[in-house]
Amino acid sequence: MRDVYILGVGMTKFGKFPEKRAVDFGREACWDAIQDAGVDRKDIEAAYCGHVYQGSVIGQLIMRELGLTGIPVVNVENACSSGSTAFREAYIAVAAGLYDLALVVGVEQLSTRVSGVLPPKDTDYEGTMGLIMPSVFALRGRLHMEKYGTTIEQFAKIRVKNSIHAAQNPRAQFRKVVTVEEVNGAKMVCEPLTMLHCCPNADGGAAAVICSEKVVRNYTARKLRVAASVLLSGTMEQAGDDMTVSSLTSRAAQQAYEKAGLGPEDLSLVELHDCFTTAELMHYENLGLCPRGEGGRMIDEGKTMLGGKIPVNVSGGLLCKGHPLGATGVGQIAEVVWHLRGEAGSRQVEGAKAGLTHCMGGAIGGVDGASCTVNIIVRD
Amino acid sequence: MRDVYILGVGMTKFGKFPEKRAVDFGREACWDAIQDAGVDRKDIEAAYCGHVYQGSVIGQLIMRELGLTGIPVVNVENACSSGSTAFREAYIAVAAGLYDLALVVGVEQLSTRVSGVLPPKDTDYEGTMGLIMPSVFALRGRLHMEKYGTTIEQFAKIRVKNSIHAAQNPRAQFRKVVTVEEVNGAKMVCEPLTMLHCCPNADGGAAAVICSEKVVRNYTARKLRVAASVLLSGTMEQAGDDMTVSSLTSRAAQQAYEKAGLGPEDLSLVELHDCFTTAELMHYENLGLCPRGEGGRMIDEGKTMLGGKIPVNVSGGLLCKGHPLGATGVGQIAEVVWHLRGEAGSRQVEGAKAGLTHCMGGAIGGVDGASCTVNIIVRD
Repeated sequence: MRDVYILGVGMTKFGKFPEKRAVDFGREACWDAIQDAGVDRKDIEAAYCGHVYQGSVIGQLIMRELGLTGIPVVNVENACSSGSTAFREAYIAVAAGLYDLALVVGVEQLSTRVSGVLPPKDTDYEGTMGLIMPSVFALRGRLHMEKYGTTIEQFAKIRVKNSIHAAQNPRAQFRKVVTVEEVNGAKMVCEPLTMLHCCPNADGGAAAVICSEKVVRNYTARKLRVAASVLLSGTMEQAGDDMTVSSLTSRAAQQAYEKAGLGPEDLSLVELHDCFTTAELMHYENLGLCPRGEGGRMIDEGKTMLGGKIPVNVSGGLLCKGHPLGATGVGQIAEVVWHLRGEAGSRQVEGAKAGLTHCMGGAIGGVDGASCTVNIIVRD
Repeated sequence: MRDVYILGVGMTKFGKFPEKRAVDFGREACWDAIQDAGVDRKDIEAAYCGHVYQGSVIGQLIMRELGLTGIPVVNVENACSSGSTAFREAYIAVAAGLYDLALVVGVEQLSTRVSGVLPPKDTDYEGTMGLIMPSVFALRGRLHMEKYGTTIEQFAKIRVKNSIHAAQNPRAQFRKVVTVEEVNGAKMVCEPLTMLHCCPNADGGAAAVICSEKVVRNYTARKLRVAASVLLSGTMEQAGDDMTVSSLTSRAAQQAYEKAGLGPEDLSLVELHDCFTTAELMHYENLGLCPRGEGGRMIDEGKTMLGGKIPVNVSGGLLCKGHPLGATGVGQIAEVVWHLRGEAGSRQVEGAKAGLTHCMGGAIGGVDGASCTVNIIVRD
């Protein structure tokens, strides 16, 4: 398989925009990415679109708005990993040698469709019995507290950190810096998680132009390579696992580190799936950023804060940048690209050389996700 | 890119089964394909699922029913080409060298969701104004009649032919042989197309196990190779085209013939997207089976009947086998595989060496589809 590079990225502001359609977000994000890449849109050979709730052939409808019809278009769904799965399908097609230049877009118009928590499918037995996402991540947090002495203040500090990051991100949904008291004093959703421990529903779009080695040389000397792109699904056996662990995330990260030939200590920044504060803290451990049980210490010592040893969710993360399902995974990639290029403005991670993105999607078997993607992007 | 082979296929009976769930069709079809391939399910490295209306992470839910969790699973949607697009994504991943053994499944539980014609999206301006599928294919048929003197009897003969074929297919939805009088005397849907000129809604599933050269040698000497797998989307410019032409289909077929290194004259059978009788007749021309305007003669002379020069829709086609959206494209591939192996029973195309499958999906711009897939499978 050939090396694959990211030539350009784009992202709309995330937030609640009930007056806009999914195709609006898609068109804007794609146009930004195409201009950022500096390519002629007519040279794009294929498009991949990730989304969850936008209905049939949304990718083709976005391409029509761009005047970019005639090419192969594939719509991809993998719950909250939809955008990153679309990215990976495009990556595989370019790596295979089928295309030299491809467009990836992730979109979601969520606020006009869903209010509050995402509804469980009627075939999701655990979900319909009450084990919806806030419950799952409240239980996991509770067990982490029991097992390792982690405190609700430590979980709250995750939201505080991400709010400080988001204040530097003009595309973020919530840009107000919050305090631990505000986080824990907010409306209770599922004990011990208040509203501010949960990521918001959002609308938005993100896009990336990817290409082969042959093409990247014609456009830039600043080569950003996809060093690994991994997708896995959860296992039934995980229902018997320790709930503080996402073995799905650990397996995906391990495969990505091996493929990229680097470890967590080589990363400059991480954009991970902080759907809840408890998720971010546990993913420090799942991604190998710290040993098991030491997630709380990571946040206490400021290691994952901008300026710390391994900044996590410098964009604001799902908690503060917002979580427009299909757009999230592609938005994470855009964030890493901006840092690797030194274009992240006041939230820049200095000298960033390698970034990891991580998404999880879908409840299956009640505990771990139906899909997990890990991408590692490096500056060659 | 490496060569890719089809090791096994499976298909449920198509029809209206409101008591069954999409995962039931998926599980049954996958299990058949896995047993047909003779592989251990634990050796399957990835799964691709095509569907339209089955909701989030349906592929993962099917894999869970098979006890096949932990692997990468990708859900793909491209309207009526969803199954064949999923097949192509799996094909690309195997051709790229990423996997040696992959599972493709297409499913749809349609009868409990949709009654009558598929509803247009609220962003489909032409559809909401009345240009829904029966209208499009009635208009196209009308123009073909004006332009080439094609008759409604010729269109009706397509349904008659496919009903004769379906009578030999135990998996088909409608197995009763009908006459031209019955077809044209049925309830009018959109003049000149009666109900029997339109394909029915159906539920069902189909699956295929595909593999690399390295793997195929371990299982069989009977090598069925994917000689071409093409996907394209429609162009805006087509709104100005002659409506009797699907330039989308013609372009996709041309690319497939070039890639496979053969022409329509080399095909032993064709499974094409006969969503309406008018569609099948016009696709004879679009796929190059006959010159423009001679579709009517093809059916009059029995050339596309089993035993004719180039049998089309020996399975019964969408018109009689049924059209469970996501399952259709994979079901077409199963049909071709059975013929290439000499396992098609009383409907066997003798000495079949090469088969073509063709799907179209989605209205965009009112006339041509949002996606079109053409696969060519050959017996090496």
